[in-house]
Amino acid sequence: MHSTALFLGSCLLTVCVGTTQAAQPTSSGLTGFTQENAAKERVMETKLDSLIDPKDLTSWLQRMSSAPNQVGGPHDRQNAEWQLALFKSWGWDAHLETFEALYPTPVAVSLELLGDKPFKARLHEPPIASDRTSNVPGQLPPYVAYQGDGDVTAPLVYVNYGMPDDYEALERLGVSVRGKIVIARYGAGFRGVKPKLAQQHGAVGCLIYSDPADDGFAVDDVYPKGPERNADGVQRGSVADITLYPGDPLTPGVGSTKGVKRQLTRETAPSIMKIPTLPISYGDAEPLLEALGGPLAPRAARGALAITYHVGPSAANVHLMVKSDWSSRPIYDVVAIIKGAQAPDQWIIRGNHHDGWVFGAGDPLSGQVALMAEAKAIGALAKAGIRPKRTLVYASWDGEEPALIGSTEWAEAHAAELRRKAVVYVNSDAIVRGFLSAGGTHALTRLVNEVASDVRDPETGATLLERQRARIAVEHEQGAKAAGDADHEKRLAQLAQSGQDLPLSALGSGSDYTAFLHHLGVATLNVSFGGEGDRGGVYHSVYDSFDHYSRFGDPGETYGAVLAKVVARIVLRVANADVIPMRFGDTATTFSEYVTDLEHVIESQTQHRTRVQQLQKTDSFRLAADPLRPVAAPALAAPVEKLDFSALSTAVTRLRSAATQYDDAIASAGVSMSAKKRAGVNALLVRMEQRLLTQEGLPRRPWYRNVAYAPGVLTGYGSKTFPAVREAIEAGAYDEAQHYLGVTAAVVDGYAAALESATHLID
Amino acid sequence: MHSTALFLGSCLLTVCVGTTQAAQPTSSGLTGFTQENAAKERVMETKLDSLIDPKDLTSWLQRMSSAPNQVGGPHDRQNAEWQLALFKSWGWDAHLETFEALYPTPVAVSLELLGDKPFKARLHEPPIASDRTSNVPGQLPPYVAYQGDGDVTAPLVYVNYGMPDDYEALERLGVSVRGKIVIARYGAGFRGVKPKLAQQHGAVGCLIYSDPADDGFAVDDVYPKGPERNADGVQRGSVADITLYPGDPLTPGVGSTKGVKRQLTRETAPSIMKIPTLPISYGDAEPLLEALGGPLAPRAARGALAITYHVGPSAANVHLMVKSDWSSRPIYDVVAIIKGAQAPDQWIIRGNHHDGWVFGAGDPLSGQVALMAEAKAIGALAKAGIRPKRTLVYASWDGEEPALIGSTEWAEAHAAELRRKAVVYVNSDAIVRGFLSAGGTHALTRLVNEVASDVRDPETGATLLERQRARIAVEHEQGAKAAGDADHEKRLAQLAQSGQDLPLSALGSGSDYTAFLHHLGVATLNVSFGGEGDRGGVYHSVYDSFDHYSRFGDPGETYGAVLAKVVARIVLRVANADVIPMRFGDTATTFSEYVTDLEHVIESQTQHRTRVQQLQKTDSFRLAADPLRPVAAPALAAPVEKLDFSALSTAVTRLRSAATQYDDAIASAGVSMSAKKRAGVNALLVRMEQRLLTQEGLPRRPWYRNVAYAPGVLTGYGSKTFPAVREAIEAGAYDEAQHYLGVTAAVVDGYAAALESATHLID
Repeated sequence: MHSTALFLGSCLLTVCVGTTQAAQPTSSGLTGFTQENAAKERVMETKLDSLIDPKDLTSWLQRMSSAPNQVGGPHDRQNAEWQLALFKSWGWDAHLETFEALYPTPVAVSLELLGDKPFKARLHEPPIASDRTSNVPGQLPPYVAYQGDGDVTAPLVYVNYGMPDDYEALERLGVSVRGKIVIARYGAGFRGVKPKLAQQHGAVGCLIYSDPADDGFAVDDVYPKGPERNADGVQRGSVADITLYPGDPLTPGVGSTKGVKRQLTRETAPSIMKIPTLPISYGDAEPLLEALGGPLAPRAARGALAITYHVGPSAANVHLMVKSDWSSRPIYDVVAIIKGAQAPDQWIIRGNHHDGWVFGAGDPLSGQVALMAEAKAIGALAKAGIRPKRTLVYASWDGEEPALIGSTEWAEAHAAELRRKAVVYVNSDAIVRGFLSAGGTHALTRLVNEVASDVRDPETGATLLERQRARIAVEHEQGAKAAGDADHEKRLAQLAQSGQDLPLSALGSGSDYTAFLHHLGVATLNVSFGGEGDRGGVYHSVYDSFDHYSRFGDPGETYGAVLAKVVARIVLRVANADVIPMRFGDTATTFSEYVTDLEHVIESQTQHRTRVQQLQKTDSFRLAADPLRPVAAPALAAPVEKLDFSALSTAVTRLRSAATQYDDAIASAGVSMSAKKRAGVNALLVRMEQRLLTQEGLPRRPWYRNVAYAPGVLTGYGSKTFPAVREAIEAGAYDEAQHYLGVTAAVVDGYAAALESATHLID
Repeated sequence: MHSTALFLGSCLLTVCVGTTQAAQPTSSGLTGFTQENAAKERVMETKLDSLIDPKDLTSWLQRMSSAPNQVGGPHDRQNAEWQLALFKSWGWDAHLETFEALYPTPVAVSLELLGDKPFKARLHEPPIASDRTSNVPGQLPPYVAYQGDGDVTAPLVYVNYGMPDDYEALERLGVSVRGKIVIARYGAGFRGVKPKLAQQHGAVGCLIYSDPADDGFAVDDVYPKGPERNADGVQRGSVADITLYPGDPLTPGVGSTKGVKRQLTRETAPSIMKIPTLPISYGDAEPLLEALGGPLAPRAARGALAITYHVGPSAANVHLMVKSDWSSRPIYDVVAIIKGAQAPDQWIIRGNHHDGWVFGAGDPLSGQVALMAEAKAIGALAKAGIRPKRTLVYASWDGEEPALIGSTEWAEAHAAELRRKAVVYVNSDAIVRGFLSAGGTHALTRLVNEVASDVRDPETGATLLERQRARIAVEHEQGAKAAGDADHEKRLAQLAQSGQDLPLSALGSGSDYTAFLHHLGVATLNVSFGGEGDRGGVYHSVYDSFDHYSRFGDPGETYGAVLAKVVARIVLRVANADVIPMRFGDTATTFSEYVTDLEHVIESQTQHRTRVQQLQKTDSFRLAADPLRPVAAPALAAPVEKLDFSALSTAVTRLRSAATQYDDAIASAGVSMSAKKRAGVNALLVRMEQRLLTQEGLPRRPWYRNVAYAPGVLTGYGSKTFPAVREAIEAGAYDEAQHYLGVTAAVVDGYAAALESATHLID
C-alpha cells in the first residue's frame, strides 16, 4: 500500500519533521553500548555486511514477482510458504500465522460515456513485449478494494484531487457534486479520502485517475521507453478508511483469526465506502474529461492532458458499474524468531509485507528481499554463535495492500504480549535507489543518525548521512521546496549544513507500522530509500514488474542491499545495546515544535479570517471577480477561539527537563551502571512509548490512541501531530480542541513522569 | 507590438511599482486647478463623456480591421488616410507625416525535420469559417521582422524561454547550442532576446513557438470555441533589438525622412539579428520537440504539450530557411492638432498606433479607436468653444509593430521642438475588458489616481480605483502572486487596503512611449485595461480579428469607451491645469525604493555566492545529484564587490526634501499664485523629466538616456530601474556599476536642484 511521496504530497517517507540535539557521539561511540560492546558490535556488523549479497536479493525478487501475488491468490500463498522454508533453513524458528479477512475482488466492472460522443473505457493494462511478466495470467483487473459496489448513471464533475479545499473551490464556482459521479485525480492525499469526501458531498460514484502531470509523460518518458505511467497504466489500491482503523474491516481491535466473532458486517463497517469507485488510466480519463462543460478548472486544478480542463458537469451522462465478490480470504503472515540470549522477553520486531497488487516487484518486494537478506545474514551469524541479546521477531506480512491486514491482525491478536515485550518495531516497504529517509519515534533519532553515518552510499562513496544533508542543503538552495513550509525547510537546511542530527519524520499511515505505533504505542521506525530511481510510474500497476524494477528502480539491487545493512544495524544495535538506545531530548524538542505548530495554526486562522472579513466588508471579492466568470467570495470561517495551551506547554517543559536529566544521567553514568539498574531502566524503556497512548483514543476513532501522531482524517497517509488537538482546531471545533489539549497535556505529563522514574533508577 | 503581460511576465501593464503619498485631494479637488477651474473641468468632462459612443468605436474597429493593415500594405495606407479625413472632419488641424524605413517581409520560408520521421511544418494559419476576415487576402505569412535570413541544417536543442537562466541550466546539463538550431517558447521576455542570446551562444538558427502552457489549451478553450491560441496559431512579431534603439534600424537618433542619410546598412545595423529565426505554432512545434533526445528538460522548462520534454539535441537534423525582401517602406503617421488657447507652445501628445501584424483588431485598434473617440469628442467641444489651454497633438502612429518606427522617427525628427514644448506623452495600445493599469512618470501618480477615482467601471459600478484596489487585495490574499516579489506585493496590498494612491509601474519598452520617455525625457503615461477579456490567445495572429475581439476582447467596446474617458481626462486635465499636475513626493518615494532594490540585489548576490561556495566546499552538489542524471554544480559567480551608494542616497535624500518643499509650497500657495509665477513654474515643469537624462546615454546603448528607467537588455519589455547601475550589478560588472552610481547620483541631484528652483519661484 505504501504511498509514493512524489505524488501523494506526504512527507511520510522523507526526513522532515522535528529538530534534534547536537550530533556528538556518546563516549562509547555507539549510544547504549559500553565501549567494549560497541567495538564488538562493529566487528559483528562488518561480518554481517559480508553476508549480504545483492545477487540473493535479485533472485528472490525475480522469483517472488514471477506471478501475481495479491491476497488470496495461489502465488501469494506459495511465496509465504517458500519464505517460511527459507527462514527455517537460515536457522530461524519460523511459522505461518493465518488470519481470515473480508477481501472483495471485482466480478464485473464497466464504465462508459453516453451521449453524442459515446466512449467505452478499456479498464485494462495490456501486455508489453519487453515486460516479461505482463502477460502472466492470474492478474486482478484494475479496481480499488472496499469501494461500495453499484450501478449508477449520472453527469460527471471533475473535483481535482478530491480534497477538502477542492470542494471549497467548487462551491465558490457554484458547482455541486450531489447526484453526480465525480472524477478525481490521484495525489494530494490517500486515495480513500476521495470517495469518502465524494459520498459526504452527495456524489453517487467516484472515478480516480492518474493525471500525467503527477504520474505520466509530464514527469518522464513513459513505460516501456522510460519509467513513467503510460496511457494504459492504472493505480490499484485500497479505499478502506484506514484513518478510522486498519485491518479487517469487520474486526477492529481484534485479531481476525478464523473462528473469532465479527463485530461488524460489510454494511455496518464504517471503513468500507458506500459508493462505487473505480481507478482508471489517463487514456480512459481523457474522453471523459473532454466531455466536461461548466467553468474552467482553477489553474492549480489543471493536469497535463492536452485538453482545457473544465470542472463540469458534463452534458452527457456517465455510466459506472462495479460488482465485487465479498468473500473472506486467508492472510498468511510468516513469523520467524531468534530468541535473545540474555533478554528473551524483549522483542525487536522487524516487518515488511509480501503481498502485492499484481506482481509487486517494487511494492513491496524491493523492501521484502532486504528483510530476507538481513534474516539470512543474522541467521548465519547466529549459527556461528553470534546471537542477539534480545529476541528478534522477523515478520513477512500478508494483506498489507488492502488494509494493512496481516500486521494489524497480528498486532491485535498479540497485543497483550507486545505490550510487555515489544522494544521496537522496524518497518520497510517499497524502495528505489537514492537517499535514505526515516520516520518514527523521536527518541530513536540519534540511533538512526549513527547508523546513517556508519553506512556508505554505493553511488557516491559518501555516508548516507552526508548524502541526506547534501540533498537537503542543495534543495533548499534551489528553492525546490519553496512552496512548502518555508520556516521548516530553513530549519532543516540549517541542521543539514551545521552537521547536526537530522530529524525523523512523524509517521502517518500507509504501511505496516500503523498498528504498532498508533494502536499499541510500540517505539517504531520506518526506513526507506528513494529520490532517484522511479517508484511512482508503475505504482500498483501490472507494470510494477521485475523488468521495470531492474531497469528503473534499483538496478542490481544495490540499494536493496544497503537497506538490509541499515536495518540490520538498527535491529541489532537495539537488540544488543546495554541500555536501549533512546535519547529523549529529541522527543522534547519535537514535541515543543508541535506545540508551536499548533499555535501557528491558530494564528494563521485568525489572520486569514480577519483578512477575509476585511475583504468582504469592502466588497473586494465581487469587485475583483470577472462578472462573466463568477466566483463567490470564500465563506467566512467561524470566529477563532482563544485556546489555553498552558497545560500542554507546562507538560512539554517538564518533559524537556526530564529528558535532559535522563540523557545527562545516561551520559555520565555511562552505560556501565550495575546490571540491575540497567535491567530496571530497560524495563521502563520498553514501555516508554506506550505512555503516549490515551485509553479513550482519538475523537471518533478510538482505535487510534497515540496522542503524538496519527494519520490525518483528511490526509490518510500524511501525519497529524498532536492529532486530536490539531484536527479539532483545523475543523474549527475549539471546545473539542481545548478538551484534547487537556488530554494531551496529561499524557505528555505522564510520559515525563515515567522518564523521571527512569532517571531516579540511574542515580 | 504591445506585449501581453500574461505571458511575457512583464509588469509593464500593471500598476506595480513604487509607493505613494496619502491620497488626500488637494483643496481645489483637482491637482493643479483652482477650485473654480476644477469645477469647470468637471462640467466639461461630463459633456465629454456624453460625446463618447461605443457604437463609434465598434464601427471604426470593424472597418479598420477589415483587411490586413501591416506596414507597407494598401489597407494600412487607407486607414491612415481615412483617419486623416476623420480628424479633419472633427475640427482638428491634421496631416500625414511620412517616413521611410527598412522593413523586411518574407519571400520564402521553409522548416522541416529530416531523419526517420520526417515532418514538414505547415507555417500557415488556415481560415476559420466563424472568423469572417480570416480568409481575406493580403496577409503576411507568419514571420519575425529583422531576423537574419539564412538556410541552415542542424540538430535541434530546446532552450525553454531562451533567457539567460535557461542557458545556465543547459550548461549544467552539459548541452551546448553551438552549431545547433534552438527552439524557444514564447514568454519570460521580449521575443527579440531569444535569437539575440541564441546567436551569442553560437546557435545557427532559432525557432520560437507558443507553448500551450502559456498560450493555448492549458489557458482556456482554443479559438474558435474559446479565446485561446489553437494548434495553428502563430505569434508574429519583431526581433529587432529595441533595447539598443527602436525605430528604423538604419537611422538611430535621426528621423528617417525620405532623403535623410542612412548611417547604417542591414549588415552593420546592430539591432538586426544575424541568424534565421521563425515563429511557429505548437502544432508545428510538437513533432520537432518529440524528436529531441538528451536530458529531460528541467521541471520548470516543461510546457503543456502531451509529450515528455527533453532538451536535446535531436538525433535528426532540422532544416530551416528564411529569405526576406529587405526593401524600405513608407510609414504613415497621422498627426492632428488643436492649438492651445492660452499656452500653444506647451504640447500634450497623445498616441496609439494603427498598424497591425495582420488585421490587428485587438492590437492595436482596440486602443486606437479609443484615441479616435477622444479626438471626436474633444473636437466637438472645441467646435462648441471649449478649447484646451495647452495644445493637443493626437498621433496615430504607423510601423509600431516592426520597431516602434512611426513614433520613434517622429520623435527623433521633432526632437528639438519636443524638448521645448512637450509637457506629457500619453500612450495606449491593445486593451481588453477588465482593470485599469497605468505606468510612467511617477510625478503623475496623483493625477492618474484622481482620474481612476472619477471614472466608474461599467461591469461593477465601482470606481476604477476601487476595482484596482480590490483586485490587488484579493490576489494578495489568495497568494496569486506569491511567486513574485513577496515584499513588494505586500506593500502594494497594504496601499490598496489602506486606501492610499496606487503606484504607477515603471515603463520598459514594447510600445510607442519609448522614444518620448527614454530618449527625450518627456513625462509619459501608458494607460491600459485588461485582466478579464482575452488578449493573449490571438496576439499577433490572423485570428486577432473583429470577430474574436467582439466575442472575447471587449464585447460592445464598453472598455474602449472607458479608456477614452480616462485618457481624455488625463489629456485635458494636463492641458487645462493652472499648474501642470505633478507631485514629486511620489517620485522621491519611488527612487528611494529603487535604491533599496539595488542594495537588495547586492545583498542577495552576496548571500547566494556564499551559499554556493559553502555547498561546493562540502561537495554537496555532487552528493545531491543523481549520478545517472548528471547536473553540474552551478558556476560560482565572481566575488561581489562592495559598492558605495552614498552619493546616490544623498541625492535621493535631497530629492525627498526638495519634493516635500515643492509639494507643500504648491499646496499652501494653492494654484492661485500670480500668473507670472505660474508660468515660470509651468515652464520649469515642462522640462523637469528631461533632467533625468544623461547625455552620455546608458552603457553600450547611448540612444537610451533616462537614468531612471529603461527596458532591460535581457528582458526587452520589462523595465530596469536605475538601469545602468542595476544591469552592471546583475552582470557582476561592479566597476561599471560604481561609475554609473556616480552618473545617476549626479543626474538625480540635478533633478532635485531643478525642483528646488521651482519651489523658489513659488515662494
